[in-house]
Amino acid sequence: MDKPYVIGIDMGGTNTAFGVVDRRGDILFRNSISTLGYIKGEDYVNDLGNAINDLIEKNNLKDTIKGMGMGVPNGNMNDGTVENAANIPWAKGIVVPLAAMMTGKTGLPCKLTNDANAAALGEMAYGAAKGMKDFIVITLGTGVGGGIVSNGQLIVGHDGFAGELGHVRVIRENGRACGCGRTGCLETYTSATGVARTAREYLDMQPERESVLRNIQQRSITSKDVYEAAKTGDQLAIDVFNFTGKILGEVFCDFIAFSSPKAFILFGGLAHAGNFLLDPLEKAIEENVLFVYKGKTEVIISKLNDSEAAILGASALAWEL
Amino acid sequence: MDKPYVIGIDMGGTNTAFGVVDRRGDILFRNSISTLGYIKGEDYVNDLGNAINDLIEKNNLKDTIKGMGMGVPNGNMNDGTVENAANIPWAKGIVVPLAAMMTGKTGLPCKLTNDANAAALGEMAYGAAKGMKDFIVITLGTGVGGGIVSNGQLIVGHDGFAGELGHVRVIRENGRACGCGRTGCLETYTSATGVARTAREYLDMQPERESVLRNIQQRSITSKDVYEAAKTGDQLAIDVFNFTGKILGEVFCDFIAFSSPKAFILFGGLAHAGNFLLDPLEKAIEENVLFVYKGKTEVIISKLNDSEAAILGASALAWEL
Repeated sequence: MDKPYVIGIDMGGTNTAFGVVDRRGDILFRNSISTLGYIKGEDYVNDLGNAINDLIEKNNLKDTIKGMGMGVPNGNMNDGTVENAANIPWAKGIVVPLAAMMTGKTGLPCKLTNDANAAALGEMAYGAAKGMKDFIVITLGTGVGGGIVSNGQLIVGHDGFAGELGHVRVIRENGRACGCGRTGCLETYTSATGVARTAREYLDMQPERESVLRNIQQRSITSKDVYEAAKTGDQLAIDVFNFTGKILGEVFCDFIAFSSPKAFILFGGLAHAGNFLLDPLEKAIEENVLFVYKGKTEVIISKLNDSEAAILGASALAWEL
Repeated sequence: MDKPYVIGIDMGGTNTAFGVVDRRGDILFRNSISTLGYIKGEDYVNDLGNAINDLIEKNNLKDTIKGMGMGVPNGNMNDGTVENAANIPWAKGIVVPLAAMMTGKTGLPCKLTNDANAAALGEMAYGAAKGMKDFIVITLGTGVGGGIVSNGQLIVGHDGFAGELGHVRVIRENGRACGCGRTGCLETYTSATGVARTAREYLDMQPERESVLRNIQQRSITSKDVYEAAKTGDQLAIDVFNFTGKILGEVFCDFIAFSSPKAFILFGGLAHAGNFLLDPLEKAIEENVLFVYKGKTEVIISKLNDSEAAILGASALAWEL
């Protein structure tokens, strides 16, 4: 008989959270370990594997686990490795066969991918994309990521690294400098940090405009501050979201021309801005999309619980084992 | 036993060419009818079906044909219809169930898609993409089209119309007017007509520069004229290709971020410009691609014979029946 549970593991820069998940997407048991302080991948795998083995043993789940799925920065689904993850000391500049190491430690099959791809699988298994075969998840956090599903399958590309939608260039001339070393990338405008950057630009370049954001020290403004300001009716803050939504909506038209998804699902911190972001975004799609696609694509805000979504997304990988 | 042949049908605006194709991609028998002059789809299907039935009968191929594949403007692979094809009088403003009608007439199963998708399947079955699971065919003709393959499958999207890469917007401010009613679309710059347009702009805006293209009446300049001029060493013509290749290379970087293809395959008239186009294109990729993809993606010029490629591409659909 098919085993009833999988384990989802969300490896972040600070913490690694994991949980036992059933087919409906309920997390039955969970725990976490710190991701920090490891110099060798073997030591991290040893501690994480022990914690997982403990969780299984403690809850009498032996022989009920189908496998493990991991969401990992720079995770390569094709071969289960982590490649050049800048924020993980033991995976900087090298290729680590993490999935195989986790299997070695736990005896459970393991697949991994990056967090945006995991989010896409999570939406398909348990969330807004249930039953959809063509959709794109856009993660709007510190950066911008993409998880693209076509024909019911994740698009990972020949090298396992497809879907870097945050690094599609939306402004080709005099665009903002991006952490990747190039300019004009989508994530410099529509990530949480991009929104804060826009707010600072607006405050600087429109000195005549009043805004409650002027009460905050400029360099410490966050996207959440901009959202709170917008909620009070602050027009400058609302304009920041209008600008952000317009850029996102225009580039979505290009993504539609590429893979014609039934829906975009917005995921991550900035998605909570709700209609402040959604209204200008949908307007930009309506005004810019090629006629053949008009009115066909929805934009949905993920309904998966933030604290659970990353574990759920990773766990969805394991159902495909 | 599996039947050894398929029929490929290339429906163009002027002619419909078709042929019997074997597994190696050899066209054994071929014929064509005019596409013009039909007011009702039924009449076109009747004449085309008769011509196909004749070809089968004449060559004793009864019971050897696995099925038919058609490349059709605005062909929708999901449901076998033609939707709003502007240049086909009997498919203007309506949805015609062409594949089902062709099956009704010939007794053979039939699938159809647009020409760029057919080209992609043709490259995968018989051409440069043999054995590749992730690649993109770009057709550079009167317009620009895309045929995207990921995980070994054509990306057609939820509505069957994915891959309209000619309508990805490469210039968002003050871009060229496009036939689709928008501005800045890729095909206004990198189609054969886009190249001629660039040449006319260069001649107008750089009156001090000499060029053999000044010997041609400006409004009748074609991309072939620009190519012939470039071959003589005409620097203005070479610069036109440099500009075209740069735009194409830059947008390819965005396509790479999307689906991370192993290769781009250039197809259609403009692809014959060879290194005049390829050199600046590859340079632009090298200079602009995100580091994780650097050096991973090839650009290949299709080696399929132009007069055969469209039939072969369409025929490849039928192997998937």
